[in-house]
Amino acid sequence: MEHMRPADIERESMKIIDKELAAQGIVLETETAAVVKRVIHTTADFDYVHNLRFTPQAVEKGVAALGGGVVVTDTNMALSGVSKPALARLGAAAHCFMAEPETAEQAKAAGTTRAAAAVLRAEAEFSNRAVMAVGNAPTALLRIADRMEAGWRPALVIGVPVGFVNVVESKERLWEICTRLGVPAIVALGRKGGSNVAAAICNALLYTATGLLDPSSRNERKEKA
Amino acid sequence: MEHMRPADIERESMKIIDKELAAQGIVLETETAAVVKRVIHTTADFDYVHNLRFTPQAVEKGVAALGGGVVVTDTNMALSGVSKPALARLGAAAHCFMAEPETAEQAKAAGTTRAAAAVLRAEAEFSNRAVMAVGNAPTALLRIADRMEAGWRPALVIGVPVGFVNVVESKERLWEICTRLGVPAIVALGRKGGSNVAAAICNALLYTATGLLDPSSRNERKEKA
Repeated sequence: MEHMRPADIERESMKIIDKELAAQGIVLETETAAVVKRVIHTTADFDYVHNLRFTPQAVEKGVAALGGGVVVTDTNMALSGVSKPALARLGAAAHCFMAEPETAEQAKAAGTTRAAAAVLRAEAEFSNRAVMAVGNAPTALLRIADRMEAGWRPALVIGVPVGFVNVVESKERLWEICTRLGVPAIVALGRKGGSNVAAAICNALLYTATGLLDPSSRNERKEKA
Repeated sequence: MEHMRPADIERESMKIIDKELAAQGIVLETETAAVVKRVIHTTADFDYVHNLRFTPQAVEKGVAALGGGVVVTDTNMALSGVSKPALARLGAAAHCFMAEPETAEQAKAAGTTRAAAAVLRAEAEFSNRAVMAVGNAPTALLRIADRMEAGWRPALVIGVPVGFVNVVESKERLWEICTRLGVPAIVALGRKGGSNVAAAICNALLYTATGLLDPSSRNERKEKA
C-alpha cells in the first residue's frame, strides 16, 4: 500500500466520503460541498456535515477574496497547515500575529489577550483584504465581532475554534453578527473545530480558486494544466 | 468572557470533560487519563476515549524518554503545535524532516514517499532517543513498522494519522508490531487522528514530565514553583 500517489489517495478518500454521505442520505449543497468534504477528510468526522454553517455565497466570496488577499490565522499551527503553493499561485499571503513581540506588548498595554490584540493588528494592516481564520481562540472571534460592530468588514471570517469554555457562545455571537451585517462567514457551530479545521477550510477555498485538487501533487497540476 | 486567564480556561475545560466522562459512566485509567483528556480538549471529540490504545506503561516510558529525547513529527503542522517551552525545560527537542531537501532527494532516489524517507533519517539521526509522532502519513507508520522488524527501537511511537485510505490498516499493523516487540506505543485506532492529535499527545506527555498544566501560563508555573 506504499505506492499510491498522494493525488490518488486524495481522490480515493473523497470517493469514500461521497459514498458514506450517500449511504446516510446526505446531499451536500453544490457551493459548500468542497469545504465540507475537505473538513471531513481532515478530521474523519462526519459531524461537520451538521456543524458547518455558511452565510450566503460565503464560499464564492471567500474564493474571490483570496485573489491577492491575506489569510490571517490565530495560531502558527493553522498557518503551517495552509497551502503555500496555492497561496503563491493566487498572489495571496498568509500571516499569524500571535507570536510577534508587538502583539504581546499591545495585549499587555490593553489588558487583553494576545489573540484579541492580533485581531486589531490584522484590521489595521489588512483591512477588508483579511480572510480571518480562527481555529483556537474564542477571544479572537469576540474581538472580530466587536470590530465588525464598529465598522470593520473583513473579506471572510472562518470561525472554528474548538473547546469547552466560551467557544460555543463566541461562535454563536459571530454568526449572529455576520448574518446581520452581511459579512461572509463559515462557522462550525458547537464545540468542535481546531487549527486543522481552520487550515482545511482555507485550503478548500484555495484549491477551488486555483482549480487544483491538491497543489502539492505535481502530477495533478500537470493533468489540469 | 474575555477576562479569564488561559490557565483558568484550561482548568475549567478539564472540569467539564471530567464531568461529562462521569455522566457517561466512563472511568479513565490513572496512567493514561492526562493523554486522553488532552486529546478530547484539543478535538472536543469524546470518541478518543474508545479509540486511543496504550501499550503497557507507554505514558511512563514516553515521559521518561522526553528527558533529553527528540520528538520527530511527520508534519510541520504537528511540529508547530508541540510546546517549545516544555521541550526546553526538559532539554528535549523536536524536529520534522518532511520539508528538508535531503528528504525529497532520498525519497526520489529510493522511489518512496517523503514521509517514509523521513523515518529513515529519524532512525539514523536519533536512534532510540526518537519519540516518533505521526499524525498524517500512513506510509510513515508502515516504514516505522518495517524498521522495527529490522531491529530499530524508537523510545515511543505515537501513531495517530487520520483518513480514509490505508490509515486504519497502518495503525493496526503498527499496534500489532509494537505489542509484539515491546515498543511503547500510543495509537488512535480507526480513522480519526491528525496533526493536532499528535501534538496534543506530545504536549500531555511534556506537561506531565514538567509538572506543569500548561507551560504557556506563567501564573501556573509560579503556583507550582
